[in-house]
Amino acid sequence: MSFDRLIKNIREKQNPTVAGLDPKLDYIPEYIKTAAYEKYGKTLEGAAEALFEYNKGLIDALYDIVPAVKPQAAYYEMYGWQGVRTLERTIAYAREKGMFVITDGKRNDIGTTMEAYANAHIGTTDIEGEKVTAFGADALTVNGYLGTDGIKPLLEICKESDKGIFVLVKTSNPSSGELQDRKLDDGLTVYRTMGDKCEGWGSEAMGEEGYSSVGAVVGATYPEQLGELRKALPHTFFLVPGYGAQGGGAKDVAPAFDKNGAGAVINSSRGIMCAWKKENCAPEEYALAARREAIRMRDEIISFIGGIK
Amino acid sequence: MSFDRLIKNIREKQNPTVAGLDPKLDYIPEYIKTAAYEKYGKTLEGAAEALFEYNKGLIDALYDIVPAVKPQAAYYEMYGWQGVRTLERTIAYAREKGMFVITDGKRNDIGTTMEAYANAHIGTTDIEGEKVTAFGADALTVNGYLGTDGIKPLLEICKESDKGIFVLVKTSNPSSGELQDRKLDDGLTVYRTMGDKCEGWGSEAMGEEGYSSVGAVVGATYPEQLGELRKALPHTFFLVPGYGAQGGGAKDVAPAFDKNGAGAVINSSRGIMCAWKKENCAPEEYALAARREAIRMRDEIISFIGGIK
Repeated sequence: MSFDRLIKNIREKQNPTVAGLDPKLDYIPEYIKTAAYEKYGKTLEGAAEALFEYNKGLIDALYDIVPAVKPQAAYYEMYGWQGVRTLERTIAYAREKGMFVITDGKRNDIGTTMEAYANAHIGTTDIEGEKVTAFGADALTVNGYLGTDGIKPLLEICKESDKGIFVLVKTSNPSSGELQDRKLDDGLTVYRTMGDKCEGWGSEAMGEEGYSSVGAVVGATYPEQLGELRKALPHTFFLVPGYGAQGGGAKDVAPAFDKNGAGAVINSSRGIMCAWKKENCAPEEYALAARREAIRMRDEIISFIGGIK
Repeated sequence: MSFDRLIKNIREKQNPTVAGLDPKLDYIPEYIKTAAYEKYGKTLEGAAEALFEYNKGLIDALYDIVPAVKPQAAYYEMYGWQGVRTLERTIAYAREKGMFVITDGKRNDIGTTMEAYANAHIGTTDIEGEKVTAFGADALTVNGYLGTDGIKPLLEICKESDKGIFVLVKTSNPSSGELQDRKLDDGLTVYRTMGDKCEGWGSEAMGEEGYSSVGAVVGATYPEQLGELRKALPHTFFLVPGYGAQGGGAKDVAPAFDKNGAGAVINSSRGIMCAWKKENCAPEEYALAARREAIRMRDEIISFIGGIK
């Protein structure tokens, strides 16, 4: 249970990062798109096929050095059910290669409905007594605005199998403070209150590595809050977005880690996916450029935290 | 723009309700499932086909008396991309029949990603200069925990076309108060603060009927808060879940309406979908039973509010 497998994968590769797979057609080399459009036309199906081929190239170039991928559901839903099929294929392919897969869906709902989301994304679906896997990720991001009801169904699955969730605590976007930074009448901020809830929910599902199945999303763009939360939430593993394109650097993410260099995984999406554009290299080298950027990011972070014990 | 079309549809049918389409295999008559499994096996595809046939029967039985449907994304995602294809087909079929379609997805993310969700669910996706519809609903439920950044991309689409969003304000589940009822340091609750934000966001996108494109989700299970919010948010149209199976009755939802009997649409999912089980009628009559329950619900609510002017 919990994030033990992710943490072991991070330690083995000495790389506390996750590659965000948020593919946009603009990011994909022309030769991949042309081949997909020739087969399926300039349609949702054609676009979805191009997305998959692009992701596959990225996964092939990253799986031996990067412990995890994080596909962002929105960028697949944008291409209809065809895009959602690419999400499913991407998850399966990355898991085949041994990567830990975090579906970034920020799902939330009342209990009975959350059970459906939990089954969909990290559990299994019952079809006349047969247990079938719908999307089969290792972890899912969720939004805790609805309270404990909306988290419980996920905990059941986390306890039964080697899965986890990341609850939005302090997000990386500029307006995240509008609600999250507001103080409640007991003097604690909303984000801190949500963080404390994560510790509470997680106490039922602790792992061997000292972290529970209930992680938290805390943005790299708010390093001060990152440090505050690391201290306050000793059993909550952090998923840290906002590195790179959103402005966070290695110095900003350093407070996310515990004294062993564990406790957090740092996401980069555009930085890795679009490395070939930034490098201005041949489009055919897009995956190699992604690997170069992933190595640069790993080394930069490790130089700050000095390795994962 | 805004919810004008929904409100006109409600007035024309003198029915301020929406039928939730949250199909579970358990709800579906055996003869529909058998036919689907014979064609596609007891697979995600077979289940998804049964879901679609079931929904189609419900829509055929309801479209001339019920103004809107609300498919809940979780129950489709549970059946993989095949289920998500059924979501897309259900939306298209209901819109063909003139119904207003609210996708209940409670989506949320940072600005650039929210743009992808907005395009996916209520807008269009650009494929090499062609605008393609991915899911094409009329409205989407969203979660405002991330603040204004995560709402703006939706407002653009609402302003350009006849679309709307419903932001979670006070949800119907038992634990909704854990965060939503907490008071901030200015003495206002979190749900009220979120409600005030809806009024602010909506001020940019007002409709002819006096309501903006930014609606709010407020549960029937909290009638007191429903009344408080109706008074405080005069331009915010309400989507009210929690009627029926979750415990809310017509008396509980009455405070949601304005003096003209407008301003809200009440959802029933299980009550309508499972009416045939409750009635214990022949499975072949499931759609007729749904229609009988929809009429009963309409008449019960109208008897409290006295019609929509």
